[in-house]
Amino acid sequence: MQIAMIQDKIVPAKEFEPVYFDRGIFFGDGVYEVMRSYNGRIFAMEEHLQRFAGSLSAIEITGVDIDLIRSRILKAFDAAGIAEAKIYFHITRGSEPRAHIWKAGLKPNFFLTVSELSDNTREKTQGIKVSTHPDWRWKRCDIKSLNLLANVLASNDAARKGCGEAILVNETGLITEGAGSAFFAVRGQALQTAPLTANILPSITREFAIKAGRNIGLEVIEKSLTPPQAADSDELFIAVTTRDIVPVVKFDEAPIGDGKPGRYTKLLAREFLSFTV
Amino acid sequence: MQIAMIQDKIVPAKEFEPVYFDRGIFFGDGVYEVMRSYNGRIFAMEEHLQRFAGSLSAIEITGVDIDLIRSRILKAFDAAGIAEAKIYFHITRGSEPRAHIWKAGLKPNFFLTVSELSDNTREKTQGIKVSTHPDWRWKRCDIKSLNLLANVLASNDAARKGCGEAILVNETGLITEGAGSAFFAVRGQALQTAPLTANILPSITREFAIKAGRNIGLEVIEKSLTPPQAADSDELFIAVTTRDIVPVVKFDEAPIGDGKPGRYTKLLAREFLSFTV
Repeated sequence: MQIAMIQDKIVPAKEFEPVYFDRGIFFGDGVYEVMRSYNGRIFAMEEHLQRFAGSLSAIEITGVDIDLIRSRILKAFDAAGIAEAKIYFHITRGSEPRAHIWKAGLKPNFFLTVSELSDNTREKTQGIKVSTHPDWRWKRCDIKSLNLLANVLASNDAARKGCGEAILVNETGLITEGAGSAFFAVRGQALQTAPLTANILPSITREFAIKAGRNIGLEVIEKSLTPPQAADSDELFIAVTTRDIVPVVKFDEAPIGDGKPGRYTKLLAREFLSFTV
Repeated sequence: MQIAMIQDKIVPAKEFEPVYFDRGIFFGDGVYEVMRSYNGRIFAMEEHLQRFAGSLSAIEITGVDIDLIRSRILKAFDAAGIAEAKIYFHITRGSEPRAHIWKAGLKPNFFLTVSELSDNTREKTQGIKVSTHPDWRWKRCDIKSLNLLANVLASNDAARKGCGEAILVNETGLITEGAGSAFFAVRGQALQTAPLTANILPSITREFAIKAGRNIGLEVIEKSLTPPQAADSDELFIAVTTRDIVPVVKFDEAPIGDGKPGRYTKLLAREFLSFTV
C-alpha cells in the first residue's frame, strides 16, 4: 500500500490528487513567465512567449503548443478585465510519483494568474535602496525556471534591510543582476550592464532599456560591474517587467549621485514608457 | 478581479485552492528528506530529522515542531505497513499569492509519502555505469531544498546514456557528488570523497559509509577528485539512502578495476548493512 500525508491527514493511493504530485513542487521542474499590461494592452507578449518556448526547450519539456498558451493568456486576460495587470504563468513537466527520471509522455501542467499590478509610482519618483547578496543561484539562470529559492532568500534579506532589491554578486566578485531584475549603471555617457551569459536571465525589459539608452544617446557597454564600481557610478537603476525602470539611489548604504533619481535614468524611463503605448 | 487558470479552466479568486499557490511550486521554497526502513524499522530517523531542522533553519522557515513531524512520520509509516519503505517528506513555507517577499506568519505546508522501495539487488551485485555532467546546482547544496532541476536534468542525461547516476563536476574541474548520491573512490588503502562544503549535501549515508570504511581498515581522505582521478581509481561507489552502497564499474565509459564491483566496496557494503539491523 502506498500512502500520502497532507498536513496530518493520511490519504490512500486511490485518492491521490495529481496537484500534490506535481514535479514543479518536488523539483522545481518547470519554467515560467511574467508579463504585464499597460492600459489594457499586454506588453511584449511575443517576446515573452518566445523566451518561454526557449526555457521549455532548454529543460526538455516537449509537446507544448505556444499558440494554445497564447490563446489561454488572452482568454484569461480578457476574463480578468484588469487594465494594469500582472500575468504570471508556469508550465511544469507534469504530475507523477516522485522520481528524478521523468516518465516519457507525461502531460505538462499549466497554471496562470492575472492580478492587479501594485502601483509603484513612489519608488519610481523617489528611487530605492539596494543591498548586495551572494549570488547563490544555479548556473543556468538563462533558463527562467521555478528554482528560485536563492532569489527568494536574497530578496527577503534586502527587504529586511529596507531595500527594494537585492543585487547579486558572484564568487569572482562581479555583479550578475538583481534577484528579480536586470541591473544598470550610468557612468559618464555610457549605460553599463552585465553581458548575457548562462548566469544571466535574458531579460526582456533589459533589451528595451538598452534600446531606450541608445535612443537617448548613451553608449551601451555590456560588461559586469564590481560593487565598488556600482557604488561609484553616476546613476543606477533596475529594470523588470512588473516595475519597469526603477532608479537606485543608495547602493549598500552608499548614496548614488546626489541621492536622487538621476537625469539619464529619468530620460530613459520616459523613453521606455514610449514603447508601451 | 483576480483570476487563476488551471490547464484551460478559469478559476475566480474566491475558489482558489491553496495547494496551487504553494511557494514550493512558485519558488521551490521548501526543504525535504528521504528516509528508508529496513525490515520494518526506519533507519537513522534522528539523523534525518536533525538535518531537516537544519535545512528549515537555513531557509528561515520557523515554527515547525520536529516532535510533531516525527509523530506524523511514525503514524504514516505504521499506516502504510511496508517493511522496506521509502519515506519522502517536505515542508514548504506555505501558500499565498506569488511574491518573492514572504508574508510573516505564513503556515508551512507538510507533505509526505510512504511507498515500497524498489529492489536494487541487481545494481548492487553487478554495479552501475556513471557519466559526468556539469554541476549546475545552486551554491547552497548543504541545504536539502526543493530546487532540484539541475539534479533532474543531470540524472536524465545519465539515464539516456544507460547510466545509473550522474557524477557532477564543478567549474574548476572537481567532482562534487552524484546528482542524487555521495560519490566515493577507493585508491590503495584509502577511501576518498569530497569534503563537506556549501556545495555538498551533508549526506547521512556518506557518514555511515565513512564509518564503515574506517571499520574495515581504510584511511579516509576528504578531498575532491577530478574525473581522470576517478576513472583511474581502484574502485568507485555511490552512497544514498534509498540504494545504500552501489558499486560503480564504469566511469564515462572507462572500466573501473576489472569492471566488476570491487573487493573493498563489497566489504564496505556488508559493514554498512550491519548498521541497519
